[in-house]
Amino acid sequence: MGKIKSVKFKLNRFEYVKPFHITNNVSYNTENIEVIVELDNGVVGYGEASPSFRVNGEKVPALLGLEQIVNEMIVGMDVRNYRQIFDVTDKLFGAPSIKAAVQYAVLDAFSEEIGVPVYQILGGAKTKIETDYTISIGTIEERVEDARKIVERGHSVIKIKVGENLEEDIQAMMAIYEVSKGCKYIVDANTGYTPKQAVKFVTEIYRAGIDIHVFEQPVAMNDVEGLKYVRWNSPFPVAADESARTKYEVMRLIKEEAVDYINIKLMKSGISDALAIVEMVRAANQRLMLGCMAESSLGVNQSVHFALGTGAFDFHDLDSPLMLKETEFRGKYKVDVPYYYV
Amino acid sequence: MGKIKSVKFKLNRFEYVKPFHITNNVSYNTENIEVIVELDNGVVGYGEASPSFRVNGEKVPALLGLEQIVNEMIVGMDVRNYRQIFDVTDKLFGAPSIKAAVQYAVLDAFSEEIGVPVYQILGGAKTKIETDYTISIGTIEERVEDARKIVERGHSVIKIKVGENLEEDIQAMMAIYEVSKGCKYIVDANTGYTPKQAVKFVTEIYRAGIDIHVFEQPVAMNDVEGLKYVRWNSPFPVAADESARTKYEVMRLIKEEAVDYINIKLMKSGISDALAIVEMVRAANQRLMLGCMAESSLGVNQSVHFALGTGAFDFHDLDSPLMLKETEFRGKYKVDVPYYYV
Repeated sequence: MGKIKSVKFKLNRFEYVKPFHITNNVSYNTENIEVIVELDNGVVGYGEASPSFRVNGEKVPALLGLEQIVNEMIVGMDVRNYRQIFDVTDKLFGAPSIKAAVQYAVLDAFSEEIGVPVYQILGGAKTKIETDYTISIGTIEERVEDARKIVERGHSVIKIKVGENLEEDIQAMMAIYEVSKGCKYIVDANTGYTPKQAVKFVTEIYRAGIDIHVFEQPVAMNDVEGLKYVRWNSPFPVAADESARTKYEVMRLIKEEAVDYINIKLMKSGISDALAIVEMVRAANQRLMLGCMAESSLGVNQSVHFALGTGAFDFHDLDSPLMLKETEFRGKYKVDVPYYYV
Repeated sequence: MGKIKSVKFKLNRFEYVKPFHITNNVSYNTENIEVIVELDNGVVGYGEASPSFRVNGEKVPALLGLEQIVNEMIVGMDVRNYRQIFDVTDKLFGAPSIKAAVQYAVLDAFSEEIGVPVYQILGGAKTKIETDYTISIGTIEERVEDARKIVERGHSVIKIKVGENLEEDIQAMMAIYEVSKGCKYIVDANTGYTPKQAVKFVTEIYRAGIDIHVFEQPVAMNDVEGLKYVRWNSPFPVAADESARTKYEVMRLIKEEAVDYINIKLMKSGISDALAIVEMVRAANQRLMLGCMAESSLGVNQSVHFALGTGAFDFHDLDSPLMLKETEFRGKYKVDVPYYYV
């Protein structure tokens, strides 16, 4: 037996170590919602929602209002039949971060109940992954300084935020390269460019002899045609992030041949759609990376186990807990920067 | 720990209760290969391969020759990390029934080791499914007599084999209808028709006021364009079976908008590709049925747990053990015809 007795939401607030600046958005802190699923035998499972208004249209006060609704949906259901619970909670597509946290808390409770870690329930494909670290938007000097520190800390994959100023971004990219040669780069415009600006960016970087491993979400969220334009005119692989939330959106991107990479984030898709996206993208012979919103160690724990279990990802952009001030580490994984492992 | 110590193949032969006749093929018996995975702690997992030369290009003597190869591939691997074993055994795409049996035996051993049934490892979506029963090709009188018996035994879904003689098939369909009104029909041409013949068949049946729930594989295995032609000219849902073996083939069918249904058989796809196909087809908003080759209860056990775990299938065409003479029931499920349950 493993029937759900209650689901509780708890608001947790975390400050960023330093302000996090991406296209048209600066964050100083984040409010995440811890989801606690308790079974009738006392077993407890944990999840965390890190909401995004920009990507998911989510606001914390609205999400908190779903606590009772979620209880009505799944109390009494058995976590051993987790796909039944996934099917019910798939209706929460208007609050995908809550869907993710509830679905993961269910898996976590199932895991505790049977004594098998979540990553092995999902297939145990890996035991160790490497996370990148992100340089947010700033002056060229700030970005170069960040790059130096990231290399010093042992990271070999650097994510670079661009998208607010094309000319500065090109200069910044070249300056960062000078202090981080040998690193791999994921460049993320967070919807900031037009298709033509995006192609200019990659063309200039290519001419400078710099390699970009993934060029993320160059254009607007709903511009699938724009993504396709960039993909077909870019020497570097192009990824959808904001454009790839549900499995249905990803199926359309596959059919349109619009991208080379999908960036899965559990906060956009939940566990159920994320599992589907893994299988679809591999069957389409495209590639996967795994990202995060502003999860603490409790939330990134979900992505670490998902990544280890499925083994599906070329790149893991799971640096948010490294950027937040946390009083207690809550992950069921170990950290040896840049590695997460079990 | 659950490390694989050995993999053994064992040839089992089963007679059909009566000869099984489909397009251009009559079977009197089947030779299946039992796969036994033993772990270093003594736990044992079982699978069964039911090879198909017609669909998979497989021959039993060649498959038996893979025993040592499979041992070299996976001995020493831990069943708790089953996706690692799936990735390695995906290389056995030339012997998909062996791939299926080995992958399932691994899941079965994992299941025994942790005390959680396979259907719950896969999600526990259902606890009960209904199987159809198949009328093979024969005279119209034989087919009508078979239909009567099937209805008497309590089946509500009847699978009807057609594809050798269009005019006789149309007459047989109408005659069967008269003795089985209220039943649902899956009609399977096993590649026997041309596209134009297939459209004539469904047009005539539609005009006769008979409903077909799924019209399976009307045209040749490699004729995706033909499938698409039938689908776009049929009032009934059209399924791919022989044309839908790997996840890559299914992705092409989805992109081409060639069918309404996919018939998954573990013997064509293994567990790994079958899991992918489930997710892809649902994301494409198409439908799924689950079929079998000539598995005994040991082999259909695999499909029962897969169907219960994923809960993905509208129809379950899992009647083969009901058609074979078996001295011992080997399923980890219960039978109350037409239901299989846990």
